[in-house]
Amino acid sequence: MHFDQEKEMKTLREVQTSSQNVFDGEILHVNLDHVSLPNGRQAEREVIRHIGAVCVIPVTENNEVIVERQYRYPLDRVITEIPAGKLDSDSEDRLSAVKRELHEETGYTADEWTELGDFYSAPAYCDEYITMYMARGLHAGPRALDEDEFLDVFSIPLKELVDEVMSGKISDAKTQTAILKAARILGV
Amino acid sequence: MHFDQEKEMKTLREVQTSSQNVFDGEILHVNLDHVSLPNGRQAEREVIRHIGAVCVIPVTENNEVIVERQYRYPLDRVITEIPAGKLDSDSEDRLSAVKRELHEETGYTADEWTELGDFYSAPAYCDEYITMYMARGLHAGPRALDEDEFLDVFSIPLKELVDEVMSGKISDAKTQTAILKAARILGV
Repeated sequence: MHFDQEKEMKTLREVQTSSQNVFDGEILHVNLDHVSLPNGRQAEREVIRHIGAVCVIPVTENNEVIVERQYRYPLDRVITEIPAGKLDSDSEDRLSAVKRELHEETGYTADEWTELGDFYSAPAYCDEYITMYMARGLHAGPRALDEDEFLDVFSIPLKELVDEVMSGKISDAKTQTAILKAARILGV
Repeated sequence: MHFDQEKEMKTLREVQTSSQNVFDGEILHVNLDHVSLPNGRQAEREVIRHIGAVCVIPVTENNEVIVERQYRYPLDRVITEIPAGKLDSDSEDRLSAVKRELHEETGYTADEWTELGDFYSAPAYCDEYITMYMARGLHAGPRALDEDEFLDVFSIPLKELVDEVMSGKISDAKTQTAILKAARILGV
């Protein structure tokens, strides 16, 4: 279905009237903005600015997926995720970034890279934009983790991961999407 | 694949050594914490605390999906999303919350609710936890939007939405996942 963005913006857009930076971290930049709504009233908007990220679902010749078990401090839990990472800079090429993250975190390099589309993680309050890839033609090698990075790497059949997504056992949003997209492409 | 969370936590867990609230908004609560890593070194963690949310993919008898076109201030764009909303309180029942959001935003009520699992939007830095539902047996009615809420409602064939997800035309993460899950369940 086609939507006319320009026309929609005329009736739905919120216009910024002020912007205040309330936290400027290494990763997160938090702004408290004021906007004028389509009805002319004022409202507050709490906004996270994020540099952007990449993620990859690496699939072996036997349709196994290379996944990570990683501790996530906000959740105080270890969860299953596909390899992913932030961009190093605003201008970093996303394909270069994802190749680096895959290699550093898992040791794998790949011959074939397919872009699976982009997504916003939490568009209500954050501008983080993640580009997703599928990597095939994998070659195992040594990992090159940052000194302060800790995670375990496993390979799990794509079919098994699809069942885990459908039964609610995979809790990371991007990992759910990547598994379902790859399964649809590969007919699993 | 089964993972022993207790055992993993022994080797991967980061232990909080300090926590400072740096922004306390209506929606977002931002902390700057310090942690002790598994190797004994110290690191900073920027963490967003969020009350949690619900979302729903409403599917008609003809396998059309009720979606919204909504302006998202962080992106300065109108995007396609399934109905969703924050919990009103920590203790709010998630099924009640999602019924309220569907009704307020689209006017629809539903006879059948199926839980499609939970997910973390951005587990690296945010604890937002979203529960996803599919609603069937839909009944149209008048919307009850908040006075300051603006969005347009459309129904689009699930098959068309699947094609848009696979070709990268749907940019909201939860909407991508919901469409692919519903398609798998309904054989679309």
